[in-house]
Amino acid sequence: MILLLGGNGYVGSAIQKNLTGRGLPFTVASRASSDYSSLPVLVKMLRELRPEFLINAAGYTGKPNVDACEIHRTECLDGNAVLPGVIREACEQTQTPWGHVSSGCIFTGAKADGSGFKESDAPNFSFRQDNCSFYSGCKALGEEVLSGAENCFIWRLRIPFNNINSARNYISKMMRYDRLLMATNSLSQLDEFADACVASWTQRVPFGTYNLTNPGSVTTRDVVRLIQKHGLSNRDFQFFESDDQFMKLAAKTPRSNCVLDSTKAIAAGLPLSPIEDALESAMKHWI
Amino acid sequence: MILLLGGNGYVGSAIQKNLTGRGLPFTVASRASSDYSSLPVLVKMLRELRPEFLINAAGYTGKPNVDACEIHRTECLDGNAVLPGVIREACEQTQTPWGHVSSGCIFTGAKADGSGFKESDAPNFSFRQDNCSFYSGCKALGEEVLSGAENCFIWRLRIPFNNINSARNYISKMMRYDRLLMATNSLSQLDEFADACVASWTQRVPFGTYNLTNPGSVTTRDVVRLIQKHGLSNRDFQFFESDDQFMKLAAKTPRSNCVLDSTKAIAAGLPLSPIEDALESAMKHWI
Repeated sequence: MILLLGGNGYVGSAIQKNLTGRGLPFTVASRASSDYSSLPVLVKMLRELRPEFLINAAGYTGKPNVDACEIHRTECLDGNAVLPGVIREACEQTQTPWGHVSSGCIFTGAKADGSGFKESDAPNFSFRQDNCSFYSGCKALGEEVLSGAENCFIWRLRIPFNNINSARNYISKMMRYDRLLMATNSLSQLDEFADACVASWTQRVPFGTYNLTNPGSVTTRDVVRLIQKHGLSNRDFQFFESDDQFMKLAAKTPRSNCVLDSTKAIAAGLPLSPIEDALESAMKHWI
Repeated sequence: MILLLGGNGYVGSAIQKNLTGRGLPFTVASRASSDYSSLPVLVKMLRELRPEFLINAAGYTGKPNVDACEIHRTECLDGNAVLPGVIREACEQTQTPWGHVSSGCIFTGAKADGSGFKESDAPNFSFRQDNCSFYSGCKALGEEVLSGAENCFIWRLRIPFNNINSARNYISKMMRYDRLLMATNSLSQLDEFADACVASWTQRVPFGTYNLTNPGSVTTRDVVRLIQKHGLSNRDFQFFESDDQFMKLAAKTPRSNCVLDSTKAIAAGLPLSPIEDALESAMKHWI
């Protein structure tokens, strides 16, 4: 049995769907009924349930967006930096292998030659660079807390989307925002991301960190063109003139825009389709 | 009644002694019997006990020294960055004024002109500078989490000492260590620190951040000279040749050595004697 923490969030729901589709038995732990952020509670839970694997999809992302983390600092630190450390300790005490949903938002830009950041590159959008949002800082600290963890996957998600309209879906956001920021990003098709997380366990991929983004990167304009091509929206998309204008008018904290290299995940046999295909497919089957 | 969190630590015990000496009624909350790191638990506690003031002397410092925080990252983040945020939230919900024991270890060195850092200076030994121990990083994050807090004191302690031999006493440490690091520091006489914390409430000093260090600074050699002068030890004190040698042989993580300016505390009427007097007095009455 697989124990799933944070099973009711945007990512957790996709993982539930994947596990169900694969016919894998799982239990969703609810923090409301049993607060797994407490080490003794989680250790007890693991001793009783004896899951073969634990998936942590719990975290604090901020509503309606990452700006909220600038105010809800305690929850953000607790959910994104301390919780992974508590889970690590509990999993080490009970020898439970596990995986943690991290984020690619601990990087900004691309490497000097335009290529994406690899798992061996140190985060460059974090408290240690003093250039980041509180959210990204906490996510990077969460990875620091897991440094050296055994029997542990760190799965990096970036800007999730799929074919189902939702407040958290990147394509939906593009269509909803008044004005867009011109940027280049790697993205994660949510269902492929969930599939890759579960596959990394079922296929016994070596433990470690994986950038689970669809190979390649796209610009905001690329996504807009696809939205228009597939007739998802016929509105006139407006762009901010500059990052400065975006920061002045729309944002409280800097956003991560970055290119990640997912070669390691692909080489390990994890299923992630090229980003253009994933976007085309989501829009073709848009619901 | 005053509610004291972390009352059994080195700093908390000194605060207990001060409150007792002043005849002020207080309650020490024990995390073992009631986990005040949980927001609902703490809010309930505050609603039931209705303290006029709360003092947070709880934190994670690492045993036997700050190097332990490099390993116990979760506890360090939880105790020094998340807990202050939880207390802030609980105190704001219940309108309880309060004070937090922070640390001057979020600074390194002195200002360009040799003077000490003031409360208006941003920490320069923190995750954001990427130059610090995990402990200092967490303490600085703790202050970030409290930024904008109302009815809240932030009391910065630096290298506590008094006249009683103890594993945590700076003078005892000087005598115990095989070799010493040459450095210039501001220090806090522990009992004066505790007195200043309590006085900031009883004297209704304006809320805000205060460097509660004894005015001035001393070098390691100054302290050794005083130890020898007062006959506390007749051993031959050895010094590391350089910071590099210290880092190579004795330490896992960089130490903060810094000069703080306590003019604001003195101007507010908080009782802190010049550092030379405080050291002389501690050694004259050494137990």
